[in-house]
Amino acid sequence: MKIREELLRNIRQVEPYVPGEQPQEQVVKLNTNENPYPPSPEVKKALDAMDTDAFRLYPDPASSVLVKALAEQYHVGENQVFAGVGSDDVLSLCFLTFFNSDKPVLFPDITYSFYKVWAQLYRIPYECPKLDEDFRIVKEDYYCENGGIIFPNPNAPTAIYEELDFIEDILEHNRNSIVIVDEAYIDFAGRSAVELIGRYDNLIVTQTFSKSRSMAGMRIGYAIACPELIRCLNDVKYSFNSYTMSRAALVCGAAAVGDTEYFEENIRKIVKTREWAKKELSKLGFVMTDSKANFIFARHPEYDAGKLFTELKNEHIYVRHWDDERIGQYLRISVGTDEEMGILIDFLRRTVRQH
Amino acid sequence: MKIREELLRNIRQVEPYVPGEQPQEQVVKLNTNENPYPPSPEVKKALDAMDTDAFRLYPDPASSVLVKALAEQYHVGENQVFAGVGSDDVLSLCFLTFFNSDKPVLFPDITYSFYKVWAQLYRIPYECPKLDEDFRIVKEDYYCENGGIIFPNPNAPTAIYEELDFIEDILEHNRNSIVIVDEAYIDFAGRSAVELIGRYDNLIVTQTFSKSRSMAGMRIGYAIACPELIRCLNDVKYSFNSYTMSRAALVCGAAAVGDTEYFEENIRKIVKTREWAKKELSKLGFVMTDSKANFIFARHPEYDAGKLFTELKNEHIYVRHWDDERIGQYLRISVGTDEEMGILIDFLRRTVRQH
Repeated sequence: MKIREELLRNIRQVEPYVPGEQPQEQVVKLNTNENPYPPSPEVKKALDAMDTDAFRLYPDPASSVLVKALAEQYHVGENQVFAGVGSDDVLSLCFLTFFNSDKPVLFPDITYSFYKVWAQLYRIPYECPKLDEDFRIVKEDYYCENGGIIFPNPNAPTAIYEELDFIEDILEHNRNSIVIVDEAYIDFAGRSAVELIGRYDNLIVTQTFSKSRSMAGMRIGYAIACPELIRCLNDVKYSFNSYTMSRAALVCGAAAVGDTEYFEENIRKIVKTREWAKKELSKLGFVMTDSKANFIFARHPEYDAGKLFTELKNEHIYVRHWDDERIGQYLRISVGTDEEMGILIDFLRRTVRQH
Repeated sequence: MKIREELLRNIRQVEPYVPGEQPQEQVVKLNTNENPYPPSPEVKKALDAMDTDAFRLYPDPASSVLVKALAEQYHVGENQVFAGVGSDDVLSLCFLTFFNSDKPVLFPDITYSFYKVWAQLYRIPYECPKLDEDFRIVKEDYYCENGGIIFPNPNAPTAIYEELDFIEDILEHNRNSIVIVDEAYIDFAGRSAVELIGRYDNLIVTQTFSKSRSMAGMRIGYAIACPELIRCLNDVKYSFNSYTMSRAALVCGAAAVGDTEYFEENIRKIVKTREWAKKELSKLGFVMTDSKANFIFARHPEYDAGKLFTELKNEHIYVRHWDDERIGQYLRISVGTDEEMGILIDFLRRTVRQH
């Protein structure tokens, strides 16, 4: 049954979007950059200790318990942290709050696909400077007049990390624009731009619990910036949805942040596996960017990526592939456990050799 | 420190909004229409049984486990249910999806305050027909050309419930507009418009776990409509934020829905307390609408509501009051336990008598 024409004309038409598959059967799932290891045991403890009777009450709209834990972790003030329902929620709210100009917002042509979606959703004009041939952001492209700037560091799906002097050059040339550095993958990479917050009142850094903290299932993201920008974000949030983060998310998030030792060991393991997998893929003839994320962005000069994607899927190995002009010959492979990466590489070894 | 003028001009300015207070100390909290009783014991069981290791994975974007439980409960198809992060999330998405017209959306002048906020946020034109002198919705006001209609039933903060024939009249006169009936408080009231879904392809009913199911802290809301409208809602959701509901919310929500016996007993207790409190307030000279919600909307002809609000607060009894032309002499009092309502009424008895 279709919607009647008379009703349809007032309904928003959107481009269909299909998130990375969440297969139910047993597979090697390397398609949505999840962490292969469970969250800190502190999360289980916190959940077991939860007073579910308190669920009858609304959660703290200021997310204080989580904000406090994050502020301590990053050595910033509690008034410099904003928490949301995953970094998608935080970023979407940032678009709404800070990109309120008639000038175009700038983000790379190859980057996180939701930037374009939010810009369109909120009717924000935007331009997408092209990454160079090596998939690097050309910083000079961001030195023109604009209504704001956003890019991930490391960028996705290219996995390329830029050093802080690069970030600072962009900040310096854009003192009157808000610059958002989306650090979803920073913990696998290098120094965070959080250390620049004190010096740049135009900088917002966003991070997430979905990758390095193994909590994609709980939906927790956050922004760190100067107190004035955080206040703006809170004002907009309170103005249209006061209660976003559940009591369970707040408590589990705070518990996870505190367990630094577990967190660092988790990162160490993933980085080690990544570096091993990069070497193995090289041996098989794959060409890659120098990934600093928890995924690898790779192509094989003699093997079609779309075909490889399908063959992997037939073997129950899920990776990500886009039908796209510039990156259509690449696969994005999340870094799993050593065992999972071993299965992937064994299969590729057989496939590439056959070819 | 203030934001520099050059930065400020691109930042969204909003009306400051202050949600109902969430006091930390021991108080009689009758200000945000929470349920005075804990959620079903099944929620605790579900949480204890949760596999927190699975938190590393994104949640099911389709919220299937919860959608299935709700579909069974309401005897509708699974393709007729949409779940979100509280009904605020669901309603906001409905505005975005269904109110995409140049004609004004209609909702009452006195109603849930976020309707206006979302309309402004998404630049949707709107008009607000006035409730009549008894705070009733005048259905004929909704028989004109419009870009959509939304109202709560029971309405808030008036607590007045309209029978289904009233709803049906509005639906009949608006076959080519989407009509959203926000049933946040329906379980305390009477028949739900869900039974009309099969006959009206222009009807969307929204409900929440925050009131009758004692789970405000977990942020769960849902919409029920014909499959075609639910598909539109899912399309828009997937287009800009695929993963909204946490694994914990999905599992706890599904567990709560199954416990019908607990749910019905919970409602029965609250309705009983409400009816008792209405009688007691009447004896003290309060004038009220005939509340069918889990709150009472009351004024005292000889006592200023703002003053009463402050006096109650000084006694650590929190209710809600708005500085508003039409309802500024009313208090909105959530129905708590018998004990809490007794404390409120004892205090009012002393205060009103003194006066």
